[in-house]
Amino acid sequence: LTDRLLSHPGRLSVCYFMTLIIVVMLLLLLPASSRGYGVTSPHIAFFTAVSALSTCGIPVVNTALHWTMFGQAIILIAVQLGGLGVMTFASMITLGVSRRLKVSQRLLTATELGATKLSEVRGIIAVVLTSTFVIETVTFVSLFPGLYRNNGGAFWWTVWQSLFYAVSAYNNTGFTPDATGFHVSDWNVGLPILVSAFIGTIGFPVILNVFRTTVHRRSPRRWSLHTKLTLLTTFLLVLLSFSWFIANEWNNPVLFPPGSTDSSKFSKAISAAVMPRSAGFDISWVPMVSEQTKVFMSGMMFIGTGSSSTGGGIRVTTFAVLLLICRAAFANRRDITVFHRRIPRQVRLMAVSIAVTCLTLVYFAAIALIIITGCDFGDAIFEASSAFSLGGYSVGVASVQQPASLYVLAFLMIVGRLGPMTIAYSISKPRPASVVRYPEESIVVG
Amino acid sequence: LTDRLLSHPGRLSVCYFMTLIIVVMLLLLLPASSRGYGVTSPHIAFFTAVSALSTCGIPVVNTALHWTMFGQAIILIAVQLGGLGVMTFASMITLGVSRRLKVSQRLLTATELGATKLSEVRGIIAVVLTSTFVIETVTFVSLFPGLYRNNGGAFWWTVWQSLFYAVSAYNNTGFTPDATGFHVSDWNVGLPILVSAFIGTIGFPVILNVFRTTVHRRSPRRWSLHTKLTLLTTFLLVLLSFSWFIANEWNNPVLFPPGSTDSSKFSKAISAAVMPRSAGFDISWVPMVSEQTKVFMSGMMFIGTGSSSTGGGIRVTTFAVLLLICRAAFANRRDITVFHRRIPRQVRLMAVSIAVTCLTLVYFAAIALIIITGCDFGDAIFEASSAFSLGGYSVGVASVQQPASLYVLAFLMIVGRLGPMTIAYSISKPRPASVVRYPEESIVVG
Ligand SMILES: [K+]
Ligand SMILES: [K+]
Repeated sequence: LTDRLLSHPGRLSVCYFMTLIIVVMLLLLLPASSRGYGVTSPHIAFFTAVSALSTCGIPVVNTALHWTMFGQAIILIAVQLGGLGVMTFASMITLGVSRRLKVSQRLLTATELGATKLSEVRGIIAVVLTSTFVIETVTFVSLFPGLYRNNGGAFWWTVWQSLFYAVSAYNNTGFTPDATGFHVSDWNVGLPILVSAFIGTIGFPVILNVFRTTVHRRSPRRWSLHTKLTLLTTFLLVLLSFSWFIANEWNNPVLFPPGSTDSSKFSKAISAAVMPRSAGFDISWVPMVSEQTKVFMSGMMFIGTGSSSTGGGIRVTTFAVLLLICRAAFANRRDITVFHRRIPRQVRLMAVSIAVTCLTLVYFAAIALIIITGCDFGDAIFEASSAFSLGGYSVGVASVQQPASLYVLAFLMIVGRLGPMTIAYSISKPRPASVVRYPEESIVVG
Repeated sequence: LTDRLLSHPGRLSVCYFMTLIIVVMLLLLLPASSRGYGVTSPHIAFFTAVSALSTCGIPVVNTALHWTMFGQAIILIAVQLGGLGVMTFASMITLGVSRRLKVSQRLLTATELGATKLSEVRGIIAVVLTSTFVIETVTFVSLFPGLYRNNGGAFWWTVWQSLFYAVSAYNNTGFTPDATGFHVSDWNVGLPILVSAFIGTIGFPVILNVFRTTVHRRSPRRWSLHTKLTLLTTFLLVLLSFSWFIANEWNNPVLFPPGSTDSSKFSKAISAAVMPRSAGFDISWVPMVSEQTKVFMSGMMFIGTGSSSTGGGIRVTTFAVLLLICRAAFANRRDITVFHRRIPRQVRLMAVSIAVTCLTLVYFAAIALIIITGCDFGDAIFEASSAFSLGGYSVGVASVQQPASLYVLAFLMIVGRLGPMTIAYSISKPRPASVVRYPEESIVVG
């Protein structure tokens, strides 16, 4: 069974998500899910199901006002199943792919994922479940005091809200019962959410690798290349993003309310720097940013988060490999190296093809949104990047009035969640390596 | 001398352009160049010099109204020197780079460029000069009858106009003394310009390769890989662009004036499909297109034209290599193959790094334009793509009122003309190949 699961993890992953989408959609169509009987159209139910399962979280209706507690619980469970699915299947796909690699690489990948034997699928699932549970519990406990005070001592309501935020945060979904950002701008609530969401964006392999090396008291130098590259790139991107908000939006009264202190502005800027890449809480200020910030955020969202994380985008390692290729080409070097390691050929091919495919996809999706809704390119690319990279922010391009726009975004979310490679692998048959090797011939580029 | 020229063709190319920019700028500042004494500010002179020498042709003032005949002659000579410089230096750089390649590849490159010995720099220059002269003369002769009739028999005026168009067309500069598109929309004038501009976009190596194989009566199957890939990609892009204009702008009264016949609409669509990629004549309709067409044209301009052509962009072969990499990755193939040939590693590295660098550059330039002028992202990306890819169209973002925007565009034009690799090579020292080879370590991307 393990072997058969591993031989087609791509198809399995696609089937899992498609089945869940249909089930969640049907549940959301139930009268018990929405506050007004018969209000939920199939468009809204489908879009919300995709948005929850992909952990994107772009809302098409107000989460707190439209859905009943039952509906919100369905959404929360969908988010959790989506997030777990990503990590489990991504790990299995990596294992499946690694079977075709050399033994040395295979072992490295296996170590990264925490599977000491290749067939340890059950082991992976156990580790994913445990770590998710632990991180969400810690988040829940950290959130409780702040929310309890904000809610004026309503115990069970605070339990529910803490649970909702704890699950939403680690899974990086933007669904929030608090559209005005009231709780999130309170640092006692905002900080645990921020930390949990950030851990979620780092990606499961990195969390595990760091955890294991720490347990075995090895120095960070012994971290895997993947961990080092993910952490370094993430750090630089967050720093860039933070500087951007400080430099460009310092006087924006929506993002930084008048009269707020410098330190509260800084903490808000940190949150603005970390969140757009995946999470999408506190959606109140996003449509109010300047045009240049919209464009900048689109770029950041497109790059996205770590591999096998609950976030999306082309992933930070993909972006890092592209930059490393540039560095090698400009320095006229033969190998793509970083941290005293060479990046293998297959990884380079994957990185380039993922970036090109996703960019083309987002570009044409943005054009489609312009044609459907008549919005301008800045808004269209923001919305498309946000959907593809599961950022969860919205400038309100997609609406129920134009269902076609919802389907464009839903398609982007599905691709963003599964990844173009998963979809391609699940459709294509694995071909045997070609026996014929054609002669090389150079061409002029650039 | 030949050896020394070839050892640093990048620096030579940068020096040549910088020197010409200063000289042309000074000449344009002369009172004799502009119609109103003292009207030409240094900003305008610098921008026009860069625009002419890069063969981009985005005007900041009306060419016919601002510049005297003397000024226009300066611009025309600048265009010609710019165009020749590109082809000569690009060929020399390719030769210079090919010296570091294997013998088999080196010979192929040399054959492509028409140099049978590697040190035939004089030979290359001769071939470039001859072919430019022949093509421009043919264009001149073809243009004369149509313009003669349109000008009501003014002989010398027609000679001047034919010369201006002949040089502008093959060098793909958008400078036109006829901003309303009056002449170009006459098919007797429009067609020779279109054909000449199209030949210019194909690139010198392809023209030469096709010419030689035809002379030797070899079948197109014997064309070089570069020729095949350039022609196929160009054909597909023009076809896509043509279909786009037919499908999206059929009812646009500015592009297709009311009452025009279907066949005149088709010929206009062909021209609209070919021109934006490099030439930029008939600028009247461009600011009037829909938002989605602006975005689409930006993409097409960014891809651009053939290598070592008078056009710009990342070049069609670069784009083709990216697509081939995607195909190989999705089919899980090891080699990047096309037309029964493998694309060498170095070419792949170059293609990826050029695409990534240029995209990053255009992206940040567009953000800079938004910050400087307050325009929206659609206009900013159009203007930035047009400047970088030397398209020559403008939606009017850059203006004399905000000189900073002119310098952003001028910078893009210079990079677009020289190419990021040329600039990088001319700055960096060629390093000896590293002796240490690091071990491979895989990472997870996407
Ligand atoms: K999200
Ligand atoms: K041009």
